[in-house]
Amino acid sequence: MTQILIVGSVAFDTLHLPTGTFPRVLGGSATYASLAASNFAPSAIVGVVGTDFPAAAVSTLQERGIDTSGLEVGDGLSFHWEGRYTDDLLHRTTLATDLNVLATFDPKIPDAQRELPFVMLGNIAPALQLSVLDQMKAPRFVVADTMNFWIDSARADLDAVLKRVDLLVINEEEAWQLSGERHVGKVARALLSMGPKGVVVKRGEYGAMLFHDGRIFSAPGYPLDLVVDPTGAGDAFAGGLVGHLARLGRVDHDGLRAAVIHGSSVASFCVQGVSIDRLASLDAGALQDRIAGFSELVRFPA
Amino acid sequence: MTQILIVGSVAFDTLHLPTGTFPRVLGGSATYASLAASNFAPSAIVGVVGTDFPAAAVSTLQERGIDTSGLEVGDGLSFHWEGRYTDDLLHRTTLATDLNVLATFDPKIPDAQRELPFVMLGNIAPALQLSVLDQMKAPRFVVADTMNFWIDSARADLDAVLKRVDLLVINEEEAWQLSGERHVGKVARALLSMGPKGVVVKRGEYGAMLFHDGRIFSAPGYPLDLVVDPTGAGDAFAGGLVGHLARLGRVDHDGLRAAVIHGSSVASFCVQGVSIDRLASLDAGALQDRIAGFSELVRFPA
Repeated sequence: MTQILIVGSVAFDTLHLPTGTFPRVLGGSATYASLAASNFAPSAIVGVVGTDFPAAAVSTLQERGIDTSGLEVGDGLSFHWEGRYTDDLLHRTTLATDLNVLATFDPKIPDAQRELPFVMLGNIAPALQLSVLDQMKAPRFVVADTMNFWIDSARADLDAVLKRVDLLVINEEEAWQLSGERHVGKVARALLSMGPKGVVVKRGEYGAMLFHDGRIFSAPGYPLDLVVDPTGAGDAFAGGLVGHLARLGRVDHDGLRAAVIHGSSVASFCVQGVSIDRLASLDAGALQDRIAGFSELVRFPA
Repeated sequence: MTQILIVGSVAFDTLHLPTGTFPRVLGGSATYASLAASNFAPSAIVGVVGTDFPAAAVSTLQERGIDTSGLEVGDGLSFHWEGRYTDDLLHRTTLATDLNVLATFDPKIPDAQRELPFVMLGNIAPALQLSVLDQMKAPRFVVADTMNFWIDSARADLDAVLKRVDLLVINEEEAWQLSGERHVGKVARALLSMGPKGVVVKRGEYGAMLFHDGRIFSAPGYPLDLVVDPTGAGDAFAGGLVGHLARLGRVDHDGLRAAVIHGSSVASFCVQGVSIDRLASLDAGALQDRIAGFSELVRFPA
């Protein structure tokens, strides 16, 4: 039974990677997050695509058990992002952001989905995140992502979102920007004072830190030999995290710790293929092995 | 009974910190490393100071059980380093490096100390590290540190050192420089191919990674609210690490994992005081609490 509502972008990405240029591949925060969550619990996505969006891409999501009934088809072209990565894949430059149908997107949550207990607010305008929250009946756990663009341009709306979420999931550089602090403990305290009950600071290759319930959990980065495409890793992390919580049916501190590891594991696969390639073909066995790998990576000897 | 030989600098540092300027405080890699090791096992230091070096500083080391009989007094002034830290304490600029008596230092290991089983080669010229190794009878475990200056200026000697050490302990940026790689797994493989049986990559606030015996251990950085002075943290890490190995009497993979955590714990105190202030007053109870804190920080829920 569907348990998670995921709102975010569904898009085409044109990726300039060291291994080549990949024009108009499937992307978007809701795409990555729902595929990641699908390893643990079924989700419904709410978003908008254009008339150019291929049925095959929708089928890719449906085949992973994702409910796409809330995926609107707008009058125009799909959202398109184009970016170029540095050779070490650690930095990227945006070459084009064509909002297209996303420019006038007004999320409408289908009635049947307004009672879903888990909500993930992917990286879209905070005003739209608020609109989604207004439509939900009584969500049990709300996870939100954001990015530098909204911190700069929509701070009041973002502040309102933060007061209504259980867990903020944010990149470290954006956490510095939003908090005005630099040391991770102070960063976390500043962000928690803005409203969320918990904060996860995503630190790329260095892993992630969870601040929740007065306690701190440090998850390692998985030392991958092969990284192909970092696009969507943060969305996959958040999707895997909320998916694991939904499967657990628990949102206590230890549940969140486990969810951070599950999110990290899914994200570690995400970056090993271009676009959603590795994510869409991920199976439970490989995922379990990776989670065991995370556990061994931090194992304290007795 | 003394178990560890530590060679390195014993120095005066002039520190420009956000909290003030601290002229000619006690510093040096052997100083920090031996104080760190003293929490676990007694060490003997080999180094040189000038006629300006105060007896009180020698007493500080002796009071922590450190054998200073190999500390030469040279004809001249003590080594002096002066540096300025950025406000966030993440970067520093060297303002002065006065080698003084260190310029002509030729380490002579007292006979009684040539049979010590554990050796830490602190950050000094690789040629001097080699000379120390030549004087030791049959060390059981050798740990070496190095820095960018030697990677640039004494690569052949450094290569010779690397072939003779058990564990290389190195900062991440210097590991990138020495390996010519950027992703930590590739970095470690490149460094291991140079000779050491194990490598620890120190990643500052992000913790440390151990590569040894075909396995990887990721130790978190401890999220400190108060960081005062990062000087010597890397030396304290290495000293705590070798100290714990000496106490354990074991140099297997799990022993190294535990040693990385013990080194991290001591280093996390080191940065909480100016110069050696916090390190010299560290007690076993505080250290045990911090180690338990590290364990909780990475605790995987069942």
